[in-house]
Amino acid sequence: MGSGSKDTQQPKELPIVLVHRLPSIDFPPNSFRHRLRSHFHILDPHESPEPYDSFLSRHAHSIRALITFGPAPISAELLEPLPFLELVVATSAGVNHIDLPACRSRGIVVTNASFAFAEDVADCAVGLLIDVLRRISAADRFVRGRLWPVNKTFPLGFKLGGRRVGIVGMGSIGSEVAKRLSAFGCSIAYTSRNKKESVSFPFYANVSDLVTDSDVLILCCSLTEETYHIVDKDVMSALGKEGVIINVGRGSLIEEKALVQSLVQGEIGGAGLDVYEKEGDAPKELFGLDNVVLSPHSAVATPESFEALFQLTVGNLEAFFSNKPLVSVVSN
Amino acid sequence: MGSGSKDTQQPKELPIVLVHRLPSIDFPPNSFRHRLRSHFHILDPHESPEPYDSFLSRHAHSIRALITFGPAPISAELLEPLPFLELVVATSAGVNHIDLPACRSRGIVVTNASFAFAEDVADCAVGLLIDVLRRISAADRFVRGRLWPVNKTFPLGFKLGGRRVGIVGMGSIGSEVAKRLSAFGCSIAYTSRNKKESVSFPFYANVSDLVTDSDVLILCCSLTEETYHIVDKDVMSALGKEGVIINVGRGSLIEEKALVQSLVQGEIGGAGLDVYEKEGDAPKELFGLDNVVLSPHSAVATPESFEALFQLTVGNLEAFFSNKPLVSVVSN
Repeated sequence: MGSGSKDTQQPKELPIVLVHRLPSIDFPPNSFRHRLRSHFHILDPHESPEPYDSFLSRHAHSIRALITFGPAPISAELLEPLPFLELVVATSAGVNHIDLPACRSRGIVVTNASFAFAEDVADCAVGLLIDVLRRISAADRFVRGRLWPVNKTFPLGFKLGGRRVGIVGMGSIGSEVAKRLSAFGCSIAYTSRNKKESVSFPFYANVSDLVTDSDVLILCCSLTEETYHIVDKDVMSALGKEGVIINVGRGSLIEEKALVQSLVQGEIGGAGLDVYEKEGDAPKELFGLDNVVLSPHSAVATPESFEALFQLTVGNLEAFFSNKPLVSVVSN
Repeated sequence: MGSGSKDTQQPKELPIVLVHRLPSIDFPPNSFRHRLRSHFHILDPHESPEPYDSFLSRHAHSIRALITFGPAPISAELLEPLPFLELVVATSAGVNHIDLPACRSRGIVVTNASFAFAEDVADCAVGLLIDVLRRISAADRFVRGRLWPVNKTFPLGFKLGGRRVGIVGMGSIGSEVAKRLSAFGCSIAYTSRNKKESVSFPFYANVSDLVTDSDVLILCCSLTEETYHIVDKDVMSALGKEGVIINVGRGSLIEEKALVQSLVQGEIGGAGLDVYEKEGDAPKELFGLDNVVLSPHSAVATPESFEALFQLTVGNLEAFFSNKPLVSVVSN
């Protein structure tokens, strides 16, 4: 290199990005932190010995973009000491931990990561559904528990093909679920904020209408004020004794107490759950049921998803700093 | 009613069908026995107080068709006292329990039931694959074992999309597996006795060639002399540390001892098994592994499969007795 141009010799000043996270929750895996630092000047208050408030007020004048990891809430109070903030980059598909009205009133744009996660979450939704209907986890328990040589036969499952699947939320995740389940011979219908012109499956105006024509409900929508407890006791009653619920959205989409009761009393057929009202644990009343499959909010958890998340995060931030269109804006 | 024609008043004589089964294994569920009796005159030696041999020799002159349930072997010796037998109707997809050369030399036609089971077995194969890659049964164990609140994070799984899936046996089951996994963004290739003109996926002449271009092997072929231990130590070595094997065919397609060793020593990535060399139990060395999903030969076990089996069984027998083409002849 010897006589390279001045442009390449002089290190560029990297754009500043504030990291917002709970002290206990680190960056996602895949050397995310290290790789972000090659693109941006990362400010992480939890890495600094300085008190949080003083760190923030010292840097506030230069903070135009914030990246948030995990479920750390973004409230109006948090935004207050950041008068120049223009962009919040969420690293999750759901953005229920972000005060969207507060962002709107401040003119702050929010991006999310459902593009990065859509395929993996859809795979997991389909996996949970096959598992519940065909009793795969229960079968695995049966074999490992050495019951096969004793009981000889294992209870029959239910065929996937021909089931009427109602998808709640036909965004990037819902569309991937629909594509997959069509190949199994399921019939698909959906409800969503609005009918999507690009989607040919039958649209229902709300969950109450959708459930009357569904054997299976799959929840892939955002958690908002409108979708909080969108699946309640009445929806479960309408789903009926052979009906199955899959939730890969957020726990509070379902009235969990009623769900537990319906499952324990056999009022619905089964459930595959990746998310729960209380993040970090599942209702223990379900631990003895064979028609339930429980996963620890791991629907997004593949190296490929996290790589896609990294690319999407960098893509949004680079677009922002070079005044190009953002990749995944949340409509707000 | 009153003055109906003589045809409807006089009960038709039903065609005679011999049932072959192990004394301990009954007809499949779904009131199979009862419903068969409305179509055929069923002879079941295990229902009669008369000794087996004498029962058989007394009826032999009228037995042209036999239906076999479960794994009861059909050998040359069994066929010997049945000189007028023309048809063996198997109620399984695999026919490795039937002496096909003996049937061929006697001119006895064999039908099987893979048409009835193809969709359910394919669903199960895909369910096992998602389960292994995305660790669903292991996740369910993790949650039920109350480890989530303690360990906080669960190990990452692997993305399904983009995996190169090699299907061994592109019959009715293999085709259904290919259709499903294409929708997940997997690339498909196969090996089979012969290249199928109707199949557009790349064909490989044998498993050794197929495995070099595969991340996943799915076994859906019949067990024959040629396919016995078709997956051996060498195939597993070629599959490698991230490779996954799914077996919904027969246990003896895999050299099970080598499979257990490869899994225990981490030489392959994981396995989803519905069948084992010893029918009725799985190798206990696998019971502690999280990258293995074990089901008790239940890939066909849905009411819908058994209904389809009933229709196919009756269809083959009725075609035979009315000299029409059989529905599902085994090429022999």
